[in-house]
Amino acid sequence: MNKAKIVIAGAGYGGMNAAVTLSKKLGANDASITLVNKHDYHYQTTWLHEPAAGSMEPDRARVKISSLLNTNRVNFVEDEVVEVKKEDKKIILKNGELDYDYLVVALGATAETFGIPGVHEHAFTKWTLDGARQVKEHIELKFADYNNVLDRTEGVLTFVVAGAGFTGIEFIGELSERAPELCKRYDVPREAVRMYVVEAAPSALPGFDPELVEYGMNLLESRGVEFKINTPIKEVTASGVIVGEGEEINADTIVWATGVRGNPVIEKSGFEANRGRVKVEPDLRAPGHDDVFIIGDCALIINEEANRPYPPTAQIATQMAKTTAKNIESLLKGSSNLEAFKFNNQGTVASLGGKEAIGVVGSRKIYGGTASFMKKMIDNKALLTVGGPMLALKKGKFPL
Amino acid sequence: MNKAKIVIAGAGYGGMNAAVTLSKKLGANDASITLVNKHDYHYQTTWLHEPAAGSMEPDRARVKISSLLNTNRVNFVEDEVVEVKKEDKKIILKNGELDYDYLVVALGATAETFGIPGVHEHAFTKWTLDGARQVKEHIELKFADYNNVLDRTEGVLTFVVAGAGFTGIEFIGELSERAPELCKRYDVPREAVRMYVVEAAPSALPGFDPELVEYGMNLLESRGVEFKINTPIKEVTASGVIVGEGEEINADTIVWATGVRGNPVIEKSGFEANRGRVKVEPDLRAPGHDDVFIIGDCALIINEEANRPYPPTAQIATQMAKTTAKNIESLLKGSSNLEAFKFNNQGTVASLGGKEAIGVVGSRKIYGGTASFMKKMIDNKALLTVGGPMLALKKGKFPL
Repeated sequence: MNKAKIVIAGAGYGGMNAAVTLSKKLGANDASITLVNKHDYHYQTTWLHEPAAGSMEPDRARVKISSLLNTNRVNFVEDEVVEVKKEDKKIILKNGELDYDYLVVALGATAETFGIPGVHEHAFTKWTLDGARQVKEHIELKFADYNNVLDRTEGVLTFVVAGAGFTGIEFIGELSERAPELCKRYDVPREAVRMYVVEAAPSALPGFDPELVEYGMNLLESRGVEFKINTPIKEVTASGVIVGEGEEINADTIVWATGVRGNPVIEKSGFEANRGRVKVEPDLRAPGHDDVFIIGDCALIINEEANRPYPPTAQIATQMAKTTAKNIESLLKGSSNLEAFKFNNQGTVASLGGKEAIGVVGSRKIYGGTASFMKKMIDNKALLTVGGPMLALKKGKFPL
Repeated sequence: MNKAKIVIAGAGYGGMNAAVTLSKKLGANDASITLVNKHDYHYQTTWLHEPAAGSMEPDRARVKISSLLNTNRVNFVEDEVVEVKKEDKKIILKNGELDYDYLVVALGATAETFGIPGVHEHAFTKWTLDGARQVKEHIELKFADYNNVLDRTEGVLTFVVAGAGFTGIEFIGELSERAPELCKRYDVPREAVRMYVVEAAPSALPGFDPELVEYGMNLLESRGVEFKINTPIKEVTASGVIVGEGEEINADTIVWATGVRGNPVIEKSGFEANRGRVKVEPDLRAPGHDDVFIIGDCALIINEEANRPYPPTAQIATQMAKTTAKNIESLLKGSSNLEAFKFNNQGTVASLGGKEAIGVVGSRKIYGGTASFMKKMIDNKALLTVGGPMLALKKGKFPL
């Protein structure tokens, strides 16, 4: 008897949770499960603003995949996915290939540059663990540079965050909270540090409650953050960014956080996609490919109430993983009656660094300590879901 | 009655010890003592290879000048010395000036580039606390870069130390000892790190005992250090160094340690000098200037036995400070019978990182744990001399 082969590509929130859930749902005789990922670790993408700003050790934001999996039930392959050969039912890896009967594509996202010149050359765009380490060390180098450079008008300690969405706001929240400590450590006067957030849209955190946005901006401004809202970035150069009508901000550090697009593997593999995201069927399968599920940042699902796509978040990726696992279980049982995905919004909280945050849970707006508490609970819940109580205990955030 | 005004320029080993000794020798009615220094802290120049390589917190290598001085007896001015106006008996500061009756010039050294092009633009040359911080953060950034760069042949983790003298050897000793830990922290394979020491002279540690030099080189090579001896550097470029007959080593990190020259203020002030160092009289005064003592790295004294100048070290600077204090005391008492400086060599130990070192104490060669122990004792002694037992206890190195 040939067991069905399930391959899960990517071990982010979507893929990791799909692997863990499937390994619990399915017996050893039902199917073989293979998880393939570029690194041997899973990391908390939603935490990366902390190691990037240096307020958390990068190692704390990751966990060995082998420690999350029942390795008797799930094969783990450390390799990079290059392409999905849909017609051949296999995926090409950098160092090999894998056949599948059912494939879960959970390959995450990459930075969206909107074609603005110079972004890849001069800005930090990688919101990965390796990318976060690089931002952290770059920031500390810039503080160390300060007392050694002759011309400080060239932006040695000017930090520009492109984009006032979640990632940008959470990152500047951490950095602005940590700046005084960095100034002390490197003998830098506080006023030497300039922090800008540049956003093309008419508001920070577009779509978020305006009252909370104002609370957040006021708080960040009190820490020295300067907002340039309604201000598109024209170009990123070796010396800074050109914004609005040609104004130049000299800056040695530009962090790119204007949003994401789906993994390039999607387009390379010939899936019909919009900014690298596939508009999936209600059951999360790729249109026309009944053996391929696409979840997380590579999947596009319309929020019917708002008539626009749900933003790609850890929360929605985790929920998609559960639905996918359920649907694969049904398929293995011979059922074609798959469940339609339904997003259950459990609230959204943006941390602002330190003990500050803003958020909406249900219909309630929260901010300050309450929101910060809630944010930490959400972070712990993600650990609990993927790794159980031992992981939450080991890596979790003490909420008070 | 006009009290004599003593001004000490620079708070390194020479200036700091001169200030402390004079404040103990002289009564409040004998003279006013003013110490001027660019920073409000004294730092252990001989320790800087440790913070530069990241094996010591930079803060541990410095101490507030106010905590070392009897501030009732010594005025401290935080400012940068721009020029000595010998004829007017005053020194010009960036933000003011100071009159003196007796001046002690102890302004330390700056990197010697031997006119090699590109050094100041592309290499780390500042062996100061700020410079060490910069090297440390740069190294960590390069490790963080590794997993983010596409072309690793460009030397992202290639480290070139120019010069195999004390500074170069002690720095590469720390870095090679720390490299495995950095590899682990940043997920970098050990073989990705290349470390070169390039030396124009026919041997590493020129003048040091050949048997000890061999011990040291073997040890460093066992940690992956590659020596290029008898190999002059022709040019430093944005992508690395060009050595010997035109060979290029691609490297993102070049640490310049080919030796030092006296502070540029010496030449700017019109003292006759050789590479910024004044050949002082036996009593340590500048020729033709009976009110100016020059000590430490700005002073040149011939070792009659070897028929060449003593190398500038912390040890000799500290001893010069004692002689200078004694001679100023004599001058204040109206005596013209000043003491001639005599160097009392208490031994030389080069640390090689970890628990390894090589050295000569008296006529005895030491290496390994014994030498490492001795090195730590020497470091503690420097603290004891300038700051007494409390400082040694606070900042000292546990020798076992």
